[in-house]
Amino acid sequence: PGKKVLIVYAHQEPKSFNGSLLKIAVEELTKQGCSVMVSDLYAMQFEPRATRNDIVGHLHNSEAFNYAVETWEAYKRGGLSKDLVEEQKKVQEADLLIFQFPLFWFSMPAILKGWMDRVLVQGFAYDLSKVYDGGLLQDKLSLFSFTTGGSKEKYAIRGDIRYLLWPMQHGIMHFCGVKVLEPHICYAPEHVSEENRKEMLAAWTQRLKTLWKEEPIDCSPEWYFK
Amino acid sequence: PGKKVLIVYAHQEPKSFNGSLLKIAVEELTKQGCSVMVSDLYAMQFEPRATRNDIVGHLHNSEAFNYAVETWEAYKRGGLSKDLVEEQKKVQEADLLIFQFPLFWFSMPAILKGWMDRVLVQGFAYDLSKVYDGGLLQDKLSLFSFTTGGSKEKYAIRGDIRYLLWPMQHGIMHFCGVKVLEPHICYAPEHVSEENRKEMLAAWTQRLKTLWKEEPIDCSPEWYFK
Repeated sequence: PGKKVLIVYAHQEPKSFNGSLLKIAVEELTKQGCSVMVSDLYAMQFEPRATRNDIVGHLHNSEAFNYAVETWEAYKRGGLSKDLVEEQKKVQEADLLIFQFPLFWFSMPAILKGWMDRVLVQGFAYDLSKVYDGGLLQDKLSLFSFTTGGSKEKYAIRGDIRYLLWPMQHGIMHFCGVKVLEPHICYAPEHVSEENRKEMLAAWTQRLKTLWKEEPIDCSPEWYFK
Repeated sequence: PGKKVLIVYAHQEPKSFNGSLLKIAVEELTKQGCSVMVSDLYAMQFEPRATRNDIVGHLHNSEAFNYAVETWEAYKRGGLSKDLVEEQKKVQEADLLIFQFPLFWFSMPAILKGWMDRVLVQGFAYDLSKVYDGGLLQDKLSLFSFTTGGSKEKYAIRGDIRYLLWPMQHGIMHFCGVKVLEPHICYAPEHVSEENRKEMLAAWTQRLKTLWKEEPIDCSPEWYFK
């Protein structure tokens, strides 16, 4: 109770299974007394492209545009565009970040990748040697909750689904110092029975009830690739 | 000679190191007698968001929007948006796809991920059980050429850089039946000497000279995670 949660949600359709998972999370966490913020990326028409428009006013070096350098400099002088500042405020306030999305090509949909690219700038999320356990977003938790098109068995044929979590969980969250909870994966909701879908939704509610007691995963390569 | 190459390029600045790598590839491949197409995503203001706008005319199911289903149906009836049809034509013609980009968060910049999400639709790039070695884009080659912010040593501290290639090379290209050449990685061009940068550019020219004699990598999990 009293915890703040930011759900970054990337699905176009409220009636989708992802939409149901979002609704459940908002309801259950609110019931627990958490304060829940939602960034509904498609509804916000969130901009995924990293461009010069992200910097208000003059550039540090207008001769050759370098996005990483320019956003770092702009962050320091308070010159990032309004949409980024708003997302950074939400991240700053949050104790827990939940990413809710359908897996697209073994990764996040581009609109969500754009949120990562643009919001988590140097100075805000990490800094020179402030990375991994020293990252600037320490004391926060994260959870990747996603649906897949293929079945669990299909993902297991060639390697392990954990392989594709490495760039997202380790490369982004762990890099910024954010602790990572076990991912929540709903396999192929479109290809199972209505009863199975209901079970999957119930399992998400159940998991959220004891979420705050969970231990983060050990973010070593072994967790992913044992 | 006579081969067709599509370079999908994702950098905002022509004067960048990525811009130089692009220029070298265009020049060297043209010199070899290849026909080179370039999709300069930022210059095209390429749309990375997967939305209803990608379908021209009526939806298959307007009650609940499902992007994968709608683009599949639209592809079959020739109802995808013009920008996607143009990219698909280029892919269809190409013998080799080169992706040139700066690594953002252990992956592609969102604008390039959006190209993958929107261009490689079902029916065009893969189909029901037509995946991996049976994928629809067989007889094509691909090559991921990218720059990093951190040094080679930094990437080696925690795991192997090959870990982050799995979703891109295996999850996307291999899934569509496209063969994968060794990636071309330029580590931290911004943090090395001018001489080192010149060596890196020369190495890219050198590699391109014998590119057509290269054997694709074996796309097994062992290549990535041995």
